[in-house]
Amino acid sequence: MKRIMLTVAYDGTAYCGWQWQPNGVTVEEILNRELSRLLREDIHVRGTSRTDSGVHALGNLCIFDTETRIPPEKICYALNQSLPDDIVVQDSCQVPRNFHPRKCSTIKTYEYTVWNQRFPNPLERRYAYSYYMKVDVEKMREAARWLVGEHDFKSFCSKRTEVETTVRRILSLDIRQEGCKIIFRIRGTGFLYNMVRIIVGTLLEVGRGMYPPEQVKTILQACDRAKAGPKVPPEGLCLMEIALQEDPWKYAEENERLDQAIETREEEPV
Amino acid sequence: MKRIMLTVAYDGTAYCGWQWQPNGVTVEEILNRELSRLLREDIHVRGTSRTDSGVHALGNLCIFDTETRIPPEKICYALNQSLPDDIVVQDSCQVPRNFHPRKCSTIKTYEYTVWNQRFPNPLERRYAYSYYMKVDVEKMREAARWLVGEHDFKSFCSKRTEVETTVRRILSLDIRQEGCKIIFRIRGTGFLYNMVRIIVGTLLEVGRGMYPPEQVKTILQACDRAKAGPKVPPEGLCLMEIALQEDPWKYAEENERLDQAIETREEEPV
Repeated sequence: MKRIMLTVAYDGTAYCGWQWQPNGVTVEEILNRELSRLLREDIHVRGTSRTDSGVHALGNLCIFDTETRIPPEKICYALNQSLPDDIVVQDSCQVPRNFHPRKCSTIKTYEYTVWNQRFPNPLERRYAYSYYMKVDVEKMREAARWLVGEHDFKSFCSKRTEVETTVRRILSLDIRQEGCKIIFRIRGTGFLYNMVRIIVGTLLEVGRGMYPPEQVKTILQACDRAKAGPKVPPEGLCLMEIALQEDPWKYAEENERLDQAIETREEEPV
Repeated sequence: MKRIMLTVAYDGTAYCGWQWQPNGVTVEEILNRELSRLLREDIHVRGTSRTDSGVHALGNLCIFDTETRIPPEKICYALNQSLPDDIVVQDSCQVPRNFHPRKCSTIKTYEYTVWNQRFPNPLERRYAYSYYMKVDVEKMREAARWLVGEHDFKSFCSKRTEVETTVRRILSLDIRQEGCKIIFRIRGTGFLYNMVRIIVGTLLEVGRGMYPPEQVKTILQACDRAKAGPKVPPEGLCLMEIALQEDPWKYAEENERLDQAIETREEEPV
């Protein structure tokens, strides 16, 4: 038995998010189905970031355990043959048996893309939020500075959440313009439910002049969802990367040796 | 009666190209249907660039004649309400009654996007050609230089074409890299059938080292389609812009005065 980690990219348009749901197809469900077919085992992947319905990813991570003899780095090639074209596994590798990226220290990078022109761009409609109102990017950058660092983000979190603490750390929040696109790039060690989309919705309200940049400080302090801006739609959001802050093998050298010993025995001809 | 020009953007994925066809839905057909409904007249648009099946556009131009009293610049707003979300009219304006962009001097800009990594990117799959082989961009740039200027592009034209001359002028052919994307930007006064896609297919063969950059000169001189590279698929191609080289009104001032006189009379209360 070995543990495999996959780096998964998907167009979330057709999916009810990552996690299995009774109504609607999810990315997790498709991966379980195709991995089980490929490896002829009952496979259950465990994801790292449970992206919401309609949200995209270029680098979500998940793990699963398998008895397969397909070399770990070849699994992505085999799996991509049978996956629908809106899910593509970018990488597969072996990790220690006791490793789970959700328990490990990570930095997540999200990008939210806004198409800022009077009419939508049909080539961007699936991956950008079309927002026609004029915005002042410099004011949004000024407002964004209040959000960087460790804060209680209760005002920027959907009420449905059930977490112990709403304190999170944003490492950076950069806003860049590329033609008619405005791209919000947010890096942090963890995010609350809908946090990125509420932050972007609030910054856009600053951008169009509904309130001054420093109002964001007041919104943070209020710890009240009603004070922040609206949640922008999912199509603009993409989980770009989950960067592991420690080498999976570092804390598991003992396990690795154990695993390899077992594998060597298994691969001897019987 | 006045003549209106539309700037049309579309995601070509779902369409059998621009021009009306017996089998399959085309962009022209959808525009005719929705314009006829909106203006309560039988409208027939005339396009400028007949993009092929699956090819995209951000700035195709078309004209039509109408008796409508909707102000020309408001037609795009009204029309976008009923168009499917993969066709968006970016602009509408009045042009002289005798004006047709196909008869006027224009510069067309096409971009062809290649996703150059071992696996496709699901967020680019509709708008980029996924090509996993390593390519040398500098060699492609060197090869591209042979194509700029006025040449007989018979080698770079699908045999199905029926044109008087295969001589065309390429004004510029730039290749830029943006992360894993390679974008070919080609500007010219006119293009032959499949010309951009055969040029890109040939440059990619140079890029992967199948023949040296200067071979492109030999291919041009051969005037033989069989000597050039393959035609790359349509999803990577986008008609970015058709730039009119003359002011539509300049050569039609007489018509304009005539039109306005007629309209003024029509709009008097009866």
